[in-house]
Amino acid sequence: MQKYKKKDFDVSNVRRFLEPGPIVLVSSAWKGATNIMTMGWHMIMEFQPSLIGCYIWTANHSFEMIKKSKECVINVPTEDIATTVVHIGNCSGREVDKFKAFKLTAIQGEKVKAPLIQECYANFECKLVDSSLINKYSLFIFEVTKAHVATSPKFPTTIHYRGDGLFMIAGPTVAKYRKLFKPEML
Amino acid sequence: MQKYKKKDFDVSNVRRFLEPGPIVLVSSAWKGATNIMTMGWHMIMEFQPSLIGCYIWTANHSFEMIKKSKECVINVPTEDIATTVVHIGNCSGREVDKFKAFKLTAIQGEKVKAPLIQECYANFECKLVDSSLINKYSLFIFEVTKAHVATSPKFPTTIHYRGDGLFMIAGPTVAKYRKLFKPEML
Repeated sequence: MQKYKKKDFDVSNVRRFLEPGPIVLVSSAWKGATNIMTMGWHMIMEFQPSLIGCYIWTANHSFEMIKKSKECVINVPTEDIATTVVHIGNCSGREVDKFKAFKLTAIQGEKVKAPLIQECYANFECKLVDSSLINKYSLFIFEVTKAHVATSPKFPTTIHYRGDGLFMIAGPTVAKYRKLFKPEML
Repeated sequence: MQKYKKKDFDVSNVRRFLEPGPIVLVSSAWKGATNIMTMGWHMIMEFQPSLIGCYIWTANHSFEMIKKSKECVINVPTEDIATTVVHIGNCSGREVDKFKAFKLTAIQGEKVKAPLIQECYANFECKLVDSSLINKYSLFIFEVTKAHVATSPKFPTTIHYRGDGLFMIAGPTVAKYRKLFKPEML
């Protein structure tokens, strides 16, 4: 597994890695335990503050941990750990210490107590800023308070879930349409 | 431009085409006029009812049209019309009749008055079911009431926006990880 070298990244620009729609790993910590869940339902909701809406199912062990700690880290995995991503989604933190079971490296965050996953391409430290939609929609609204992104490659080969066990693997990122944009649209 | 042949598709399974995170075209109709906007901020929020959360900026001409008509169609374009997708995002429905300007074919919907775009791979007819988050978050919650999906290819080459004029082009969809899933997770 890769242990990406990372640098600080502008929190108002995390859309660069989340808007394309990858499966992410959400890590959390509560009362001395950590956990990781897979998540496919998320969206950018604002640049500044850097808001992300996330659907976290009540049946997930992470649901209560994140609701109570009011924090998480959104980690962006790449295809090299796709098998691990599936295994993480297949078991529950109630029974498994996922960092240990899947040999992932927990790195301490700067803004949150939830651990970063070193083997992921990017790590976004998040604070829960609106819990009012959790009961009705399982919707957590987070603010990204610190972002860490790998220095290489420039664009990660992320995995995008279609349901039914199928993943779309990210293809190339192209700049050829850029010249068509009005400058104020960039 | 392709004019995909389509068939009815299970509304509770539109995640197959939206969860991977493509840029979509949102079409609307209000008081005899139609419009189209590009949208990158959306997420699946429920299978049944089939809910989709969408961020629509107040400055978009479509904002008021969709808020008032309480309907839209979410259309999934493929790379062959990427240039048109950028052009649509670059101009306003205040000045341009986008169906006419970009030679797109408006097809009448079954459940909504907003027109479907024939040249897109999939069309999801949506009703606004929760407008309570529009003021605070520009978040529209739609229910997909009818879905139309192209019969071929099985998986579309969608385009995924990274900001700054850059698109990630969808790579292959792979089934090789499917055997790792527990049956109840599929």
